[in-house]
Amino acid sequence: MISQSLKKHISKLQQKKYRKEFGEFIVEGKKGIEEALKSESEIIFIIIEGNKREEFQDIIQKAEKKNINIEYCTNKDLNFIKTTTNYPGIMAIVQMSDYSLDDLMNKSPIICLDRVNDPGNLGTIIRTADWFGIKNIILSEGSVDPFMDKVARSSMGSIFRENIFLSKNIVQTVLNLKKKNYKIVSLDLNGKNLEILKSAPKTVYIFGSESHGLSKDLRNLIEETYTISGAGETESLNLAISVGIVLNKIF
Amino acid sequence: MISQSLKKHISKLQQKKYRKEFGEFIVEGKKGIEEALKSESEIIFIIIEGNKREEFQDIIQKAEKKNINIEYCTNKDLNFIKTTTNYPGIMAIVQMSDYSLDDLMNKSPIICLDRVNDPGNLGTIIRTADWFGIKNIILSEGSVDPFMDKVARSSMGSIFRENIFLSKNIVQTVLNLKKKNYKIVSLDLNGKNLEILKSAPKTVYIFGSESHGLSKDLRNLIEETYTISGAGETESLNLAISVGIVLNKIF
Repeated sequence: MISQSLKKHISKLQQKKYRKEFGEFIVEGKKGIEEALKSESEIIFIIIEGNKREEFQDIIQKAEKKNINIEYCTNKDLNFIKTTTNYPGIMAIVQMSDYSLDDLMNKSPIICLDRVNDPGNLGTIIRTADWFGIKNIILSEGSVDPFMDKVARSSMGSIFRENIFLSKNIVQTVLNLKKKNYKIVSLDLNGKNLEILKSAPKTVYIFGSESHGLSKDLRNLIEETYTISGAGETESLNLAISVGIVLNKIF
Repeated sequence: MISQSLKKHISKLQQKKYRKEFGEFIVEGKKGIEEALKSESEIIFIIIEGNKREEFQDIIQKAEKKNINIEYCTNKDLNFIKTTTNYPGIMAIVQMSDYSLDDLMNKSPIICLDRVNDPGNLGTIIRTADWFGIKNIILSEGSVDPFMDKVARSSMGSIFRENIFLSKNIVQTVLNLKKKNYKIVSLDLNGKNLEILKSAPKTVYIFGSESHGLSKDLRNLIEETYTISGAGETESLNLAISVGIVLNKIF
């Protein structure tokens, strides 16, 4: 059985303001927790449904080796703590990683997302960036919280391997990168053919949200735009698909 | 006010068996209905929240020109008919299109999806196929229903422009295509580099679901496999991202 105070703490972590206050977030499901265990992230608690010990034996062993607290809960406890209706029987409280812009100025390109608000899309972009070995992601102010449970879930654990910097002023952030000789690249409908895009490490690839596009101030900072050629009648591609196609191109 | 019988009919259409029985499905939101109006699909009813007439004036005019029934509902009616919590104030009942395999044997490649069960992913794949002008999609038995509201929504109206064939025996369907000299191509982790894939009209691109992959019988029919190169530690790409990258390559 888990304590009342832990239950309260978990339900608080379902709100962004408390995640920020405590610097912790919730990860649900086997895959995400396995990836957290493999990463350098600090896992504060793992909570497992008592009658599913066998299913999660492998995780339990690894967690015990790392001296991570494991709590077992009853089915009754679940009503308080689960964040999804299909609760997978296991969750963890994980310390948020805190990256500065300097942490991202390594030899690898940077993906910059302006006001992306769909958590599934953001999780998929994080997973795709991880597939292509691109470690650096900037999120503008007004973006969905990357530590929301749905983002972590759709990232399939990739969230533990990406350097995510939360910008409070995206225009200033991009200006800072420009001063450090980063090239600022984006997509639009009238750009050069994406096929001629060449990968360079000091590049920032900026993508706007599907609903808002890029802000005018941000557009003014862009040096080159490219277009993903299409033939159909639909007006646009899903954002995560566009990011995937660009990352495949520069890989 | 809308009638009790229409309300009942709409709530029935939220279940797959009734969609099949009536050959109708629900489309919610401005974008989807605009696309339905542009397409050759038959719209049976449009239902609009009474106090949102102004917002949907353009749709109302177009629907009236086409002699489509428009019903206005109250906020109270909404509790019975809305399929999402963020009800956009407008929905339509649309006749399902019914394609045979022969309809898909035109000069364009075919996308074949085996047991894809995520409605958001399927909608995104339909939208992406439309972007790249690929009109033909086969869904295997055991796939998510493409006429589910969430699929139509994430397709952003592209569902009205695609020829979707619902196979009852995907192995037999692919065998039939093979007999007609279609080449059967797929992705795996040990295939040729995707960069050398060349587009040919008589090609079937088969993709499995993320959770199940391809069935053994289906794998036996594949003639060529390709790999999307990656560098990170994540095991796989999201299915819709993989499809997007392949379609961009063959476009």
